[in-house]
Amino acid sequence: MVGHSFMGAAHSQAWRSAGRFFDLPLAPVMQVLGGRDEARTAAAAARLGWNQHVTDWPELVHREDVDVVDICTPGDSHAEIAIAALAAGKHVLCEKPLANSVAEAEEMTRAAEEAAQRGVRAMVGFTYRRVPAIALARKLVADGRLGTVRHVRAQYLQDWIADPEAPLSWRLQKERAGSGSLGDIGAHVIDLAQYITGDAITEVSGHLETFVKERPLAAEHAGLSGTASQERGEVTVDDAAMFLARFASGAAGVFEATRFATGRKNAIRIEVNGSLGSLAFDFEDMNVLQFFDATLADEEAGFRRILVTEPTHPYVAAWWPPGHGLGYEHGFTHQVVDLVTAIADGTQPTPTFADGLQIQRVLDAVETSSATRTWQEITA
Amino acid sequence: MVGHSFMGAAHSQAWRSAGRFFDLPLAPVMQVLGGRDEARTAAAAARLGWNQHVTDWPELVHREDVDVVDICTPGDSHAEIAIAALAAGKHVLCEKPLANSVAEAEEMTRAAEEAAQRGVRAMVGFTYRRVPAIALARKLVADGRLGTVRHVRAQYLQDWIADPEAPLSWRLQKERAGSGSLGDIGAHVIDLAQYITGDAITEVSGHLETFVKERPLAAEHAGLSGTASQERGEVTVDDAAMFLARFASGAAGVFEATRFATGRKNAIRIEVNGSLGSLAFDFEDMNVLQFFDATLADEEAGFRRILVTEPTHPYVAAWWPPGHGLGYEHGFTHQVVDLVTAIADGTQPTPTFADGLQIQRVLDAVETSSATRTWQEITA
Amino acid sequence: MVGHSFMGAAHSQAWRSAGRFFDLPLAPVMQVLGGRDEARTAAAAARLGWNQHVTDWPELVHREDVDVVDICTPGDSHAEIAIAALAAGKHVLCEKPLANSVAEAEEMTRAAEEAAQRGVRAMVGFTYRRVPAIALARKLVADGRLGTVRHVRAQYLQDWIADPEAPLSWRLQKERAGSGSLGDIGAHVIDLAQYITGDAITEVSGHLETFVKERPLAAEHAGLSGTASQERGEVTVDDAAMFLARFASGAAGVFEATRFATGRKNAIRIEVNGSLGSLAFDFEDMNVLQFFDATLADEEAGFRRILVTEPTHPYVAAWWPPGHGLGYEHGFTHQVVDLVTAIADGTQPTPTFADGLQIQRVLDAVETSSATRTWQEITA
Amino acid sequence: MVGHSFMGAAHSQAWRSAGRFFDLPLAPVMQVLGGRDEARTAAAAARLGWNQHVTDWPELVHREDVDVVDICTPGDSHAEIAIAALAAGKHVLCEKPLANSVAEAEEMTRAAEEAAQRGVRAMVGFTYRRVPAIALARKLVADGRLGTVRHVRAQYLQDWIADPEAPLSWRLQKERAGSGSLGDIGAHVIDLAQYITGDAITEVSGHLETFVKERPLAAEHAGLSGTASQERGEVTVDDAAMFLARFASGAAGVFEATRFATGRKNAIRIEVNGSLGSLAFDFEDMNVLQFFDATLADEEAGFRRILVTEPTHPYVAAWWPPGHGLGYEHGFTHQVVDLVTAIADGTQPTPTFADGLQIQRVLDAVETSSATRTWQEITA
Repeated sequence: MVGHSFMGAAHSQAWRSAGRFFDLPLAPVMQVLGGRDEARTAAAAARLGWNQHVTDWPELVHREDVDVVDICTPGDSHAEIAIAALAAGKHVLCEKPLANSVAEAEEMTRAAEEAAQRGVRAMVGFTYRRVPAIALARKLVADGRLGTVRHVRAQYLQDWIADPEAPLSWRLQKERAGSGSLGDIGAHVIDLAQYITGDAITEVSGHLETFVKERPLAAEHAGLSGTASQERGEVTVDDAAMFLARFASGAAGVFEATRFATGRKNAIRIEVNGSLGSLAFDFEDMNVLQFFDATLADEEAGFRRILVTEPTHPYVAAWWPPGHGLGYEHGFTHQVVDLVTAIADGTQPTPTFADGLQIQRVLDAVETSSATRTWQEITA
Repeated sequence: MVGHSFMGAAHSQAWRSAGRFFDLPLAPVMQVLGGRDEARTAAAAARLGWNQHVTDWPELVHREDVDVVDICTPGDSHAEIAIAALAAGKHVLCEKPLANSVAEAEEMTRAAEEAAQRGVRAMVGFTYRRVPAIALARKLVADGRLGTVRHVRAQYLQDWIADPEAPLSWRLQKERAGSGSLGDIGAHVIDLAQYITGDAITEVSGHLETFVKERPLAAEHAGLSGTASQERGEVTVDDAAMFLARFASGAAGVFEATRFATGRKNAIRIEVNGSLGSLAFDFEDMNVLQFFDATLADEEAGFRRILVTEPTHPYVAAWWPPGHGLGYEHGFTHQVVDLVTAIADGTQPTPTFADGLQIQRVLDAVETSSATRTWQEITA
Repeated sequence: MVGHSFMGAAHSQAWRSAGRFFDLPLAPVMQVLGGRDEARTAAAAARLGWNQHVTDWPELVHREDVDVVDICTPGDSHAEIAIAALAAGKHVLCEKPLANSVAEAEEMTRAAEEAAQRGVRAMVGFTYRRVPAIALARKLVADGRLGTVRHVRAQYLQDWIADPEAPLSWRLQKERAGSGSLGDIGAHVIDLAQYITGDAITEVSGHLETFVKERPLAAEHAGLSGTASQERGEVTVDDAAMFLARFASGAAGVFEATRFATGRKNAIRIEVNGSLGSLAFDFEDMNVLQFFDATLADEEAGFRRILVTEPTHPYVAAWWPPGHGLGYEHGFTHQVVDLVTAIADGTQPTPTFADGLQIQRVLDAVETSSATRTWQEITA
Repeated sequence: MVGHSFMGAAHSQAWRSAGRFFDLPLAPVMQVLGGRDEARTAAAAARLGWNQHVTDWPELVHREDVDVVDICTPGDSHAEIAIAALAAGKHVLCEKPLANSVAEAEEMTRAAEEAAQRGVRAMVGFTYRRVPAIALARKLVADGRLGTVRHVRAQYLQDWIADPEAPLSWRLQKERAGSGSLGDIGAHVIDLAQYITGDAITEVSGHLETFVKERPLAAEHAGLSGTASQERGEVTVDDAAMFLARFASGAAGVFEATRFATGRKNAIRIEVNGSLGSLAFDFEDMNVLQFFDATLADEEAGFRRILVTEPTHPYVAAWWPPGHGLGYEHGFTHQVVDLVTAIADGTQPTPTFADGLQIQRVLDAVETSSATRTWQEITA
């Protein structure tokens, strides 16, 4: 695994736990952790439970005792590491977004398709797909329970920079982060909307907004220690992204991603309305899927709060009895299960790098649309 | 109508509105309002829309231009007025609780049964039965959708005297109010539980609690004007009432009524669990009934939030389109509709005085049980 | 009052009830109802409680015993009736949308402004403003409790034509209805968003969608009686409308109005995020306002479910005790109260016709934007 | 660790994870798993991640490489194992309920108190205390935010035997399980109620109900294989338990535990009303605590939905960013953290065996009360 902060911790817990609850066809060994700084990487390896550590990722991707490379670094290094690992014959799990640009994503997708010829697998980490309630949502749509889908309304709402005095972190600088809320969290709801509906966005009208143009530099940037910085720097990414969308099927979408929705902490909300029914989900109540079945008599129809904790629900049988909910990191465990199973079975895990590339194209079209004030088509 | 405060206002709006939305077989005329004080009764009649007013209720119950007597006074005058009105051949609608004692309620029930022989109708005003969501709940149970009922948990939660410095109103004095939360609000959930399930409570173990034993006298009692009273008086009724219950069917009930549930304003909550399904209701979201249908596959079962605003729902077709909810006073309008229809049809409206008497017996058993610390049976 | 269907019934109940609960400075008399068909108008007058009726609206607007003309007809007759009434010196309450076009609305606004010089008042009926929870929302924003507003997300979701076999009513024909979901329900959420924030939309990117292009003709159109029509007609209005918006303050808006949101019956939802707090409302739970106060410690901050039924809440003191909720039609009663009070006080009631005109301009810009696939500014 | 089914899996995940997220003063090693059957214990040790296994628990409690004995067996073996382990100088974590009888619990408590003299620690596993929302609830009460507590209403609702044809498992036989819903799940809400309020139950009136007196024997009991058994056996424990309670402070409690609440899967609900505020919790939405602060102005007071995922909340800083919820098993991890910390610090972890004994006495009083139909005091 390369990278050891927020995503590194989540992925480590997943690698550690998957085989304890699921019958895996292969037994993962947490062999080597890659990082940049020797001391911090060593400490992380000890804490997160990796046998060894390196500070040189090329070494990691070429080691014989490594079969899978799990990339948890920021987006600007994804392409280089993933392409090298695939070339070295290692299966790759790459955190989302696939890359910071369409061009990189295209290159990665070509590498993945070439590797697939050799039986080497590549997968991108849109983990929320593996929340049981989301997997159930997809199943209900696929089973025709919603009929023809008409509307998708999807929001990813956070509030961690709603305070204009929150410091200018690297996530607010375009050269490092690629984009702001759009790529960081908007990408997730694009993936979920397309995954649940089995449909693809074909056209968008977008609007990116940066509400707070300047922020205090974090102490690390300001060269100050121990005192609050008076210096300010420019915010060069979007604070919020909104877009209208059309899907291939003719369904209409409304999307929003923001870090300024005061009081919403990780509100991934998606509602889908079809001719026969509707679904609604909010990650802040992640073990629940709301389902309206319009084929019931009006007298007794209503949104049902399905507690997605039954053994018949996706992934749930491996865990606890009904009503004993799962948490955020369980989606990562399910990702490991699906990846390891695909590797053992010689099948292609999803979402593929091509799926990641298509999402990158949607993100790109939203940015272009916002700049040109016109609708943009998503083209392959 | 006799009485013109809170209940008088609600009843007046009901008499005024019923014929505007429902096809009534008879057209009610708001003829005479009865009160004690000339000036206040005159003002109330003008405000509430009554043609005339009197300060002598016996006059009212004997007038030729009066067909129905609607009793909205405190409980200690119900028996006298109702019995006189029935004797005079007037149909009677009597606010709940039917009376302040079992003995009075028995006398009233005898009078009602005797009057029924002469085609004169008597009905007691447990209005919450006529909230559409409650009427739907009863229908679902009656239709067998819950199977065998196992549990009833019912709460009536308010908080208006949670502050120990709230003054000693007449409602907190036994000689005037009869009982505290038990009779005032507990009676409602007893009625709802029995109405929805179609079952009767046969045995109780109760506990009455008076948390605040003394309160400041209201200015009127203390003979002070303009200054906060230092004088205190004893609270002689229960602040809260709780009881366990067994029903004739073997179902188990847990009941609670309190004016000390801080933050709960008028939370009439009832949940019923049966072998095939469950229902849940909370008056603070009065247009909604929650229904769990256990005959659905586990994968998709969940409590459904039925918005009880469809034309197929009880009483709703007369009102607004789906999603346009009703309010507190609509139950009173439905009560007028049902009463007038029964009078015109020559049928017996419900709940009858006998129903009111049975509830009085449950209240009485709870009090006795609390005093004796043993279970008490409800006997006819 | 002119018109006697859905809105006529709601307005009648409001005129009848306002003085029974509120201290009105003037006592409304329900004098004349105007309609087209003699028999139906007579029946409606009897049912809704009007003293007289006419089938000739010009007669109504010139009668000496008429002081206020309440226009509840479809949008295509608003301009003519309102302008005539104002010219005749009658105060006017006009249902929304103000008109079917910007041009008509401009003419009406000129007439209203001219009439105002003579002390004659004109008001447009965006009734949802007068739901207590909405009035409280505006107050909280005006009091600065949200700080700088960043986001508005507003939806008006219904589902009454989600079934593609629902018949082609006049509301789905452009020549009669003007527009579809956009003007009928979208206008409401535009008004609410601007009212609550005290801000104005200045720019939009819109998308109108007609999912079902043809529908069975209703029997009345097909010349058939008693049998289901096989004939189909074209739907010439939008089924759904979505738009992104920018406000004068720099806040970002996302709006959606649809009649295809299966399971959503009258879900008027509005969420506002500001630098200090957030608000959320859903008309399907109309007595509740959700409020997040970000100035509290993180440890105890959360969206609060304010039950807007306290005497300190707007309009509520006239009604029932805490926890005893109001229903759909109460907003109309509050509208009567505010209008009558303004007339008596000689002040201008709001929303004015100029407010209605501005909303018409937003609607117009959304339509143009949808047609041109570009952003449109709202210009005066 | 002794025992390897449901609780064994949860405890194993906790021992494995605690040190990965929290800074533990000691590093737990998962050394030996004890079970009865060699093959099944070996498989469980491999799956759950224990280094060795034994089928002889006395061996386990005397091994030199064992410092802590974690008892996850059924209640009838708790006393014997715990007392032996404490005598052998091992720290003990014992699953709840502490024992199947008051006598056993007393003996265990004496052993624990004697061991404490020698610095050997004993703790009982009421894990739900360590859900962050529950720990926050306790803190708010302890900080005085609720004022004087008046009401506790606590329910533990499940539905896994609502179907009368569900088989007769050992959990429904008194000789093996001790009691039914009362001890299995009722014990949890008794602990939570006392823990959150910091108060003790002193008196109860209970009612135990067995709705379904006979059930089909499970195949294992009936000696049948592959065919549904026609044989039936008697259910000898309670299906549901309800009781009224008084607390030392004078607060009033209403408790209910049942396996017949159709649609409720693991609904641990607790509401506490005090003179200054109220709290409400439901485990089916376990990352949320509802809090009503009555010291706010009426206009803006309401139950706030605190998402208990902030770094300032108990235990949360070790985990994920705000809005990224925890699941069922995290409480077990927190239990390990607290136990290991107490052992390292030489302090007494809670709940102690004495706490477990007091709960056993409450359970015992409920049973006696149900049998005698009178109130019972809890005596030390």
